[in-house]
Amino acid sequence: MGKKLYHGAAYYPELWDERVIEEDIIEMKKTGINVVRIGEFAWASMEPEEGKYDLSFFKNIINKLHENGIETVMCTPTPTPPIWYSHGHPERMYVDRDGKVMGHGSRQHACTNHPYFRERAALITENIAKEVGSLPGVIGWQIDNEFKCHVSECMCHTCKDLWHLWLKERYESVENLNEAWGTKIWSEYYHSFEQVPQPGPAPFLHNSSLHTMYQLFSMEKIAEFSDGQAEIIRKYSSAPITHNSSVFFSVDNERIFKNLDFASFDTYATIENYPAYLINSDLWRNFKKDRGFWVMETSPSYAASLASYAAPHPNGYLRVEAAAAYALGAEAFCYWLWRQQRAGCEQPHGSVLSAWGKPTVGYENVLEVADLKNEIEPIILSTAPSQAEVAITYSDRGKAFLKTESHRNLNHRSLVTDFYKRILNMGIHRDVVPEGADLEGYKVLFTPFIHYLSSEYIARAREFVEKGGIWIVGPLTGGRTENHTVHTDCALGELEKTAGVEVLYTFPMDDSGTVGRAFDISAPLGMWSSVFEANSETSVGVIEEGLAKGKSFITEHKLGGGKIVMLGSLPIGESGDLQLQKLVHHYSEEANVTLRSDVTQGTIVAPRQGDGFSVWFVINMDGNGGSVTLPQQGVDLQTNTVIEPGKLEIGKFEYKMIQFN
Amino acid sequence: MGKKLYHGAAYYPELWDERVIEEDIIEMKKTGINVVRIGEFAWASMEPEEGKYDLSFFKNIINKLHENGIETVMCTPTPTPPIWYSHGHPERMYVDRDGKVMGHGSRQHACTNHPYFRERAALITENIAKEVGSLPGVIGWQIDNEFKCHVSECMCHTCKDLWHLWLKERYESVENLNEAWGTKIWSEYYHSFEQVPQPGPAPFLHNSSLHTMYQLFSMEKIAEFSDGQAEIIRKYSSAPITHNSSVFFSVDNERIFKNLDFASFDTYATIENYPAYLINSDLWRNFKKDRGFWVMETSPSYAASLASYAAPHPNGYLRVEAAAAYALGAEAFCYWLWRQQRAGCEQPHGSVLSAWGKPTVGYENVLEVADLKNEIEPIILSTAPSQAEVAITYSDRGKAFLKTESHRNLNHRSLVTDFYKRILNMGIHRDVVPEGADLEGYKVLFTPFIHYLSSEYIARAREFVEKGGIWIVGPLTGGRTENHTVHTDCALGELEKTAGVEVLYTFPMDDSGTVGRAFDISAPLGMWSSVFEANSETSVGVIEEGLAKGKSFITEHKLGGGKIVMLGSLPIGESGDLQLQKLVHHYSEEANVTLRSDVTQGTIVAPRQGDGFSVWFVINMDGNGGSVTLPQQGVDLQTNTVIEPGKLEIGKFEYKMIQFN
Amino acid sequence: MGKKLYHGAAYYPELWDERVIEEDIIEMKKTGINVVRIGEFAWASMEPEEGKYDLSFFKNIINKLHENGIETVMCTPTPTPPIWYSHGHPERMYVDRDGKVMGHGSRQHACTNHPYFRERAALITENIAKEVGSLPGVIGWQIDNEFKCHVSECMCHTCKDLWHLWLKERYESVENLNEAWGTKIWSEYYHSFEQVPQPGPAPFLHNSSLHTMYQLFSMEKIAEFSDGQAEIIRKYSSAPITHNSSVFFSVDNERIFKNLDFASFDTYATIENYPAYLINSDLWRNFKKDRGFWVMETSPSYAASLASYAAPHPNGYLRVEAAAAYALGAEAFCYWLWRQQRAGCEQPHGSVLSAWGKPTVGYENVLEVADLKNEIEPIILSTAPSQAEVAITYSDRGKAFLKTESHRNLNHRSLVTDFYKRILNMGIHRDVVPEGADLEGYKVLFTPFIHYLSSEYIARAREFVEKGGIWIVGPLTGGRTENHTVHTDCALGELEKTAGVEVLYTFPMDDSGTVGRAFDISAPLGMWSSVFEANSETSVGVIEEGLAKGKSFITEHKLGGGKIVMLGSLPIGESGDLQLQKLVHHYSEEANVTLRSDVTQGTIVAPRQGDGFSVWFVINMDGNGGSVTLPQQGVDLQTNTVIEPGKLEIGKFEYKMIQFN
Repeated sequence: MGKKLYHGAAYYPELWDERVIEEDIIEMKKTGINVVRIGEFAWASMEPEEGKYDLSFFKNIINKLHENGIETVMCTPTPTPPIWYSHGHPERMYVDRDGKVMGHGSRQHACTNHPYFRERAALITENIAKEVGSLPGVIGWQIDNEFKCHVSECMCHTCKDLWHLWLKERYESVENLNEAWGTKIWSEYYHSFEQVPQPGPAPFLHNSSLHTMYQLFSMEKIAEFSDGQAEIIRKYSSAPITHNSSVFFSVDNERIFKNLDFASFDTYATIENYPAYLINSDLWRNFKKDRGFWVMETSPSYAASLASYAAPHPNGYLRVEAAAAYALGAEAFCYWLWRQQRAGCEQPHGSVLSAWGKPTVGYENVLEVADLKNEIEPIILSTAPSQAEVAITYSDRGKAFLKTESHRNLNHRSLVTDFYKRILNMGIHRDVVPEGADLEGYKVLFTPFIHYLSSEYIARAREFVEKGGIWIVGPLTGGRTENHTVHTDCALGELEKTAGVEVLYTFPMDDSGTVGRAFDISAPLGMWSSVFEANSETSVGVIEEGLAKGKSFITEHKLGGGKIVMLGSLPIGESGDLQLQKLVHHYSEEANVTLRSDVTQGTIVAPRQGDGFSVWFVINMDGNGGSVTLPQQGVDLQTNTVIEPGKLEIGKFEYKMIQFN
Repeated sequence: MGKKLYHGAAYYPELWDERVIEEDIIEMKKTGINVVRIGEFAWASMEPEEGKYDLSFFKNIINKLHENGIETVMCTPTPTPPIWYSHGHPERMYVDRDGKVMGHGSRQHACTNHPYFRERAALITENIAKEVGSLPGVIGWQIDNEFKCHVSECMCHTCKDLWHLWLKERYESVENLNEAWGTKIWSEYYHSFEQVPQPGPAPFLHNSSLHTMYQLFSMEKIAEFSDGQAEIIRKYSSAPITHNSSVFFSVDNERIFKNLDFASFDTYATIENYPAYLINSDLWRNFKKDRGFWVMETSPSYAASLASYAAPHPNGYLRVEAAAAYALGAEAFCYWLWRQQRAGCEQPHGSVLSAWGKPTVGYENVLEVADLKNEIEPIILSTAPSQAEVAITYSDRGKAFLKTESHRNLNHRSLVTDFYKRILNMGIHRDVVPEGADLEGYKVLFTPFIHYLSSEYIARAREFVEKGGIWIVGPLTGGRTENHTVHTDCALGELEKTAGVEVLYTFPMDDSGTVGRAFDISAPLGMWSSVFEANSETSVGVIEEGLAKGKSFITEHKLGGGKIVMLGSLPIGESGDLQLQKLVHHYSEEANVTLRSDVTQGTIVAPRQGDGFSVWFVINMDGNGGSVTLPQQGVDLQTNTVIEPGKLEIGKFEYKMIQFN
Repeated sequence: MGKKLYHGAAYYPELWDERVIEEDIIEMKKTGINVVRIGEFAWASMEPEEGKYDLSFFKNIINKLHENGIETVMCTPTPTPPIWYSHGHPERMYVDRDGKVMGHGSRQHACTNHPYFRERAALITENIAKEVGSLPGVIGWQIDNEFKCHVSECMCHTCKDLWHLWLKERYESVENLNEAWGTKIWSEYYHSFEQVPQPGPAPFLHNSSLHTMYQLFSMEKIAEFSDGQAEIIRKYSSAPITHNSSVFFSVDNERIFKNLDFASFDTYATIENYPAYLINSDLWRNFKKDRGFWVMETSPSYAASLASYAAPHPNGYLRVEAAAAYALGAEAFCYWLWRQQRAGCEQPHGSVLSAWGKPTVGYENVLEVADLKNEIEPIILSTAPSQAEVAITYSDRGKAFLKTESHRNLNHRSLVTDFYKRILNMGIHRDVVPEGADLEGYKVLFTPFIHYLSSEYIARAREFVEKGGIWIVGPLTGGRTENHTVHTDCALGELEKTAGVEVLYTFPMDDSGTVGRAFDISAPLGMWSSVFEANSETSVGVIEEGLAKGKSFITEHKLGGGKIVMLGSLPIGESGDLQLQKLVHHYSEEANVTLRSDVTQGTIVAPRQGDGFSVWFVINMDGNGGSVTLPQQGVDLQTNTVIEPGKLEIGKFEYKMIQFN
């Protein structure tokens, strides 16, 4: 990918005739679309009969697009094996938790671990890569499409065998597994790996280790599939490879992107939920720090299927969505989809053109994005997102642990999003980082809602603290081992020792009347909580009411140049939110976090760093307008006028670029 | 059926001994029951062992009833194949969408498409018809009972094969099917009909074409079964044939009644929902215009099963239910059931007599119906329901399309019922008509909530318009092809061209802040909507707020002597209801609709036409009383007194018959 | 079991190493634990390979505990067959109603009726009994654990065959079954027992007889299993045998305890629901009148699993839970569990020690219970619960009938608990008794919510009435036969004749506007109701409004020295509650019930009888404190001071023991 910004759309030329394709290209040029993503569901068009490949149609399309200045991200079509693969072969299909075997007619119906699937997938991908890999129009690749968006862990026989092999690799001996999982409980004890069940129908819950490990196994397998596909492509093409994922799917995004070249996400958040839109940018930017991420799919107006639809975007929102993405590190902003589908199950979904070729309700907004892109492109290309000082760890493996042990339907994604939203609303520039992220450059690190914290993570965070960082751990973090059991040395295992605290006991504080006081605010406490011995030197939050009265729920521990802050519980309600804001504020101040503004809620500041200057993208996301105080004199890059320090007003769905020298 | 009114009940003599049957007949005579329906679940009594038939019990019963002045509607017992049919034969049983195979012990457990079922069903029906077809007591037939009331589309192997044959007949070549369904999407593409799946388990939604076609296939198959059964009966009996159906079941009522002789329905609406009771009469009257319909089942007080019960009718309601049915065209008003069952799963259900032979809580109300029937019989028999000027199209095929593409759990039945209720409450005499209805005699036609409108329907409606009618189309009408895909020429295909409008785009208006103004009222708009180009000549409703501001949502198009009015969106909330009332009022006035009164809500006027006179049945349905203005002097047929024009009061649950000359 | 009180905990030494076990024993002694329950899930530890038994570990543990003054209740481990039993043997597993076959990894996964399960269960139990049956530490046995807590009726092939045998035994001929079940309905008719299905998938509800009988069959089978296990143990041990059950499980507790030696229950009610805690004591006391019952499981603070948790007990509540149990007849109060589990699926569950060996949040409360036990032991041991004068019948068979015919999701357990709560709050000392209970000693008997009342029960109750008792029957009682059909002689069959009433009709009164007046209060009536002929001599409750206006809903019938009161309907809402309170009060007065106090709501009086004296345990359960009027001078046994008659205040979570001579 070159040094430019992309404005793109998902395109399905295989569904339309030549006349329509001609129209499409004309319209793409009108709407400033300079890249399309094609092919991800077209297996049957590319290999209509088993072993008979024909990529000529796609080659022609790619070339024709390229001639018209439109580049292509080529996809592998593996989410939709053709009927020759699935018909009469239930053993190749995905099996759900209840044992239901999927049939043909939708997507993700095949088990992606079946050896014959792997074989056919490798062949189709190799054929595609060989045929189009060197075309000048192909500027990137996408593997498959939204892995595990409709399905999660497959329960077929192939998976059973692979599960046993995976366990063997992980535990070496079944005795190790028995010990690690504590299988003496409920007489679960296994004599061989072959006896270990998949977490299918059972009268009550499965062993937590079994349930979590099966998720990790499944996440590893799909990542391996992705790895293999990428390897094949690389034999024939130097274009970078991605996958379009999301925090909603049953995958380990960090693991998947490890062996890919750039990171992409799909999002369909509505305006009410714009922080859930933004968190993607703040997270995906950090999967591949050296390359801009792609917003690979978002609706020009509304998401829909036969069975549901979302509210359409208000006019103006699409443009600020694009502005925010580009400002926060996106290289591309792409729609799903270009032309409304006439068939299938997503016909009602928002698009740029209707199935009958007319502009849709979102069309004008797409034109606005095209203009925006052109306007900001030079500024974006001459800057990069400023290094954030505050990081929040997001973990898909943590999501798996929490899915197994969900307490009261807790969900890692939504818990972290809520946590993130608070920091966003406080005007702090932030990164959301995967577990394995380098912590260099940060001043404050948050690690909430991760049942199991690896030794490696603890060591890295410890080093971060020793070098002066403030690490805020919890709530609900560290109480489980890597095998999803409870620690037996102390409540939080290695973390507890590192954090210099003593957990007295843990218990669920919801509905227990527990009140904690910290930072001059009292708030009810909730969620599964760790109670610390109170100590006037280390206690920052003290329990005022309830079973643990007089004990501590927030402690500080100095280590090297920095500090570990244990947050044992979740302050809840309005006062809890305020208390948490004070906590964030307190430690941000203490850590000397500077990339922060007083921007009003609903508006964001995305700071970018150029060579000797910085630029603030100030963007109103909620359509209500807002303001921010400029700390110094700047230049409004749209009007090229000098702006004095002080309050800067931002109109509804307005964005401004202010350069500071 | 002769020239008389019927007052009947479902009767299960096979469950009781001789003494009870004697009691029953005495009680039937006391309660004015002059017809019973028998036999619909009695297969095991009639053919206790495979191939051994014995109808003597039923012959005796029919004769004995006849001797006592009670006629019989004889049923075929096919909803409940005996254990010799089902035991050990899972391949003969109904299979649900998840693949669960039904067992014996309830009803509708057999796949009605299995060839052996068809064979045994033909034999039992032939035996019954032969034995009782010429008995003088048999005045009618009912085929089966409530087709598809508990089940919908069967997924068994037999159905799979028949599905493939049905597809072959419909599409001739699989290439046609692929093209029609757009199966290139998601690599669904089929190489042979045999590969086309049933819409069973899949990770996400099936192709809309597949889902809808499978419903149409299933509806056609059950209708074919009905046809075949009727043919057998006709060989042995000249008595007319019906089936007891409902808008709730997974059938195409219009198709089923096409080959039957009279139409019947079952209803268990409670008083709160009396419009849902009335819509049945207004629809069923139009399935067989030449014959009175039957209310084949309704409770004398309350519906119930082991798992639920409804509130009992207040005293007086049953009588006005019967009055309304007879006035709106019923020939019979029948209860389910005569004597409370002692076993099974519907023991708690309301009945005329209890299982121990005593009068139930509804008994007195049944006596009132008997009196009512006697009182109104001469008036009913000398008149017929007046030809309505306003028609609303109801479509079970439309219901199937909407089941596939339900947007936000939309349901054709309840949408049309809401639409109907408004017109009912406005005091307009109306017909609810099937898609294929002759439009002769109407002045205004409404066609709401039908995704797919056939060319044949459009042509008929166009002719209706050219002759001077006003056709109001929408909302949610016409946007899909006959194969349940999206049009590619324009949003509404043929309809759009006929209606002389241009749809700019379509989008879901719910939660989008869209406001439309029409007939001097502003109202929020909702539902999937078509937006029309605004044109001061044709625009009747203009969008004031929202994404499509300035465009139109209601347009008029003059054609011949009439007009097509496109209603692109659904006005919602209180103001939306008012706006729709104004729309109905406006076009009713314009079309010179005269069969309308100012009857207060909760009371209805059912106008009937005699030879040189008309009669208004004015009936209070809601128990609150009401009034209506008489347009001219009339005669109260109960008191035989002259009533002056002007306000006529109607007491709680009262009915009056006013004759005008 | 000797003449002492127990304070115990469930203990799983097989999950821990020697060091931990040493710690545990030290801690048990500190916390006053004098009994543990062990072994109920340890089959794989005891018989790691099929046929290889090793009980040495448990023998050692029992002996070591005994040496430390801690006795053992030994369990059979049959809820968790090892992997060698389940792997590769789907035919041995539990099958749910939808046909899903359970796998290994949780508990209750095996069908307990499979002959090979019975064989292996007998062998493991015999081995255990042989090995530890005569150890001095073993003071009792528990069979299995919480039968049918996760599962209900198994649908496997073994069960199908046993079901047919059970039916054959019950009905002798299939013709009898057909007649009893009324299978002519819906052509269900069976030609042989082998044809009778299990109540698996069906398009609609199964026949009520089939559904109820299958439940009775299942309840009998699990009880037979319990019987057989007890017989084996008795060959090797004289220690008494119990099972830990609950009103929540799909079992017939009366039947199970018939052949066991003492009764135990598990309960996890939270403080908000303390009457649901107390009803267990008032019921379990009556399963085995000659022996104290055991609270075998309750949490020291909160129940939890991976998927949920309850609120922790407030400080002080655990002690009054124990006080109430001991005062109401418990011999033991035991926790689940001693040490938090590190693995499995119940890790978060409340315990006395954490998995890392520290005191939990509930620890201090456990110490309080230990003190309480020591304090009250001499008083408890020198007294016994006073004979209650008021009894309420609880029936697990009634629960099964109501599960089949649940009307509007009615549930016997919660209905009876609500009824009980009212009597509890009125300060009346009461028994909750199984259907077969001896009625000697009672003055008032309530029999609500039992669809089917056996002849034997009616005869016993009649005798009770003739001897002077007042029997209050209903609502919803007696309307079904033993085969779960409707009576055909009169609404309530034998009961109706015995009660000297005539039921005119029955109907569901909910939402029907029915109002009943009795005891000077008018209240709405609800639920399926019987309406009686009004008679100024016998009518106590008259229907003032609604369909049955002027009829009666409460009647009295004098019989011998007593009276039968029929309660035909359920008064509902606040006024209904008041009316029912007045009814209870009226008949308690009439029957001269004396064991009653004016104790305030939230506090209870548990009267006990000693030799020439009585003791009132006055216990505040709700944490709000309360008071009661002492009828005479007493002695406070804690302070040994004389207390004058009159008002006695009780503090929050306080208990007092007042002796009267």
